[in-house]
Amino acid sequence: MRKAFPALAAAAFLVAAASPSPTEILATAPADAWRSVLPENLLLLDLPGGKQVAIELAPDFAPQHVANIRLLAKAGWFAQHASIVRVQENYVVQWGDATGKAALPKATVMQPQGSYERPGLPAGFRALPYRDAYAAQAGHSNGWPVASDGTSHWLVHCPGMVGAGRDMPPDTGTGAELYAVIGHGPRHLDRNIAVVGRVLSGMEYLSSLPRGTGEIGFYESESERVKLGSVQLAEDVAGAPRFEVMRSDSAAFGQWVNARANRAEGFFVRPAGAADICNLMPPVRPIRR
Amino acid sequence: MRKAFPALAAAAFLVAAASPSPTEILATAPADAWRSVLPENLLLLDLPGGKQVAIELAPDFAPQHVANIRLLAKAGWFAQHASIVRVQENYVVQWGDATGKAALPKATVMQPQGSYERPGLPAGFRALPYRDAYAAQAGHSNGWPVASDGTSHWLVHCPGMVGAGRDMPPDTGTGAELYAVIGHGPRHLDRNIAVVGRVLSGMEYLSSLPRGTGEIGFYESESERVKLGSVQLAEDVAGAPRFEVMRSDSAAFGQWVNARANRAEGFFVRPAGAADICNLMPPVRPIRR
Repeated sequence: MRKAFPALAAAAFLVAAASPSPTEILATAPADAWRSVLPENLLLLDLPGGKQVAIELAPDFAPQHVANIRLLAKAGWFAQHASIVRVQENYVVQWGDATGKAALPKATVMQPQGSYERPGLPAGFRALPYRDAYAAQAGHSNGWPVASDGTSHWLVHCPGMVGAGRDMPPDTGTGAELYAVIGHGPRHLDRNIAVVGRVLSGMEYLSSLPRGTGEIGFYESESERVKLGSVQLAEDVAGAPRFEVMRSDSAAFGQWVNARANRAEGFFVRPAGAADICNLMPPVRPIRR
Repeated sequence: MRKAFPALAAAAFLVAAASPSPTEILATAPADAWRSVLPENLLLLDLPGGKQVAIELAPDFAPQHVANIRLLAKAGWFAQHASIVRVQENYVVQWGDATGKAALPKATVMQPQGSYERPGLPAGFRALPYRDAYAAQAGHSNGWPVASDGTSHWLVHCPGMVGAGRDMPPDTGTGAELYAVIGHGPRHLDRNIAVVGRVLSGMEYLSSLPRGTGEIGFYESESERVKLGSVQLAEDVAGAPRFEVMRSDSAAFGQWVNARANRAEGFFVRPAGAADICNLMPPVRPIRR
């Protein structure tokens, strides 16, 4: 049963060729069109060579998984046990305990619930005025890409989104094994795995890793695996980087979506008139200090 | 104006959990469910370290661009002048003449036409029974991913698809500068750039290259650029590899599409009931000799 969704104003569908480009819209958006990422939700993964990946966790969408990940980070569990174990072309980069034997902290919830989908529409849901290939409706909530069937909602598998690896049901993954999507969004995983966050920075360090030659992209030898360095929450790191995500309920975001879907600058000869949710990931910027 | 499209049988929508998996369907598909890639359409790019990328050219969709690319390959132009010059995260890997000064063979068509879209529906078009985020209809023709508005049709920008870089209109690109899509399909480029082929093998060598740090992912120094080795058509290479692409008009392909859209094997708790064209790229396999 499909319910009505709040939508972008229909007037936003048509843009003149002289309209500002997506880049120009971001450059001139007011300060209140952005929200700060909370340090308690920002997971910083250090890779060899001084490279860092910053992930925003999504407690509003995967509360028990995120609680586990926070626990593991604060216990130093990832730094002690985790390495990148799998890189499958056009699919995922995955990290966890390659031995499968490391004990988890006692407080870890072994089968977190409530992360595959959540009831109703999410707070401040803004529906896109475009078709979605998988769901009745796609849109955004608080700077997150979301889909809904009108009855429940869930985070979607787009490039850069982070999910919790799991074994067969009823296992839902503890969050000790995580993956980031590379390649075309594997949306068939939506509602089948817990999506727990989004890479805000450093995605290129994950997506450019050599692909694994084992089945479904697993690395076949220890020498291929990339040992993680420090994996901490920004709240526990002095001088941690800070980021802002564009507020999806801002006027500027609506303009940006519309401009992205109707590219008409010099290069373009034919505006698409639509855009896929995975090509509308809310803009991110570092906060300079 | 949307016209009627031939479609997969509606009966294919429902599958029992015991139905064969996509992998099983491929393993048991009859020989005539596959077509051989013609050596005259197979472009082989050699990268350093013995790595090779195999691209099937698409003369039915971009005849003048493909004629140019064949001409350039036979003249040894790419091997002499081309290197990988740009790798933009979640977008494209691009190769061409970094100096922008190399002369093209005299017979090169400088503004090829007829590649952005072509009239009517393509031969043997098989429409998907799923929504497409960008076009009125998506589907397949002869093992190629295609979209249509009912009046014309075009190849779509999915990961692994190869297009012709160009400058501002009316430039359409000669084919001397090419790119392969990495990341989520940038479908807003459909009908704005000529799509000329598809990477059948070796995509992982392109997608795992370091991202460029210049604007839109261009490499900033000569040392970052990857010089191409031999770039030849398979018809001109003794012992060249051969490939087969699944015929999109075969019964097995219909079963595979349906199984991909309704994954219900042990891991899955909730079949998607749909699939995006870019997650339905026709299967490819090497021919062993």
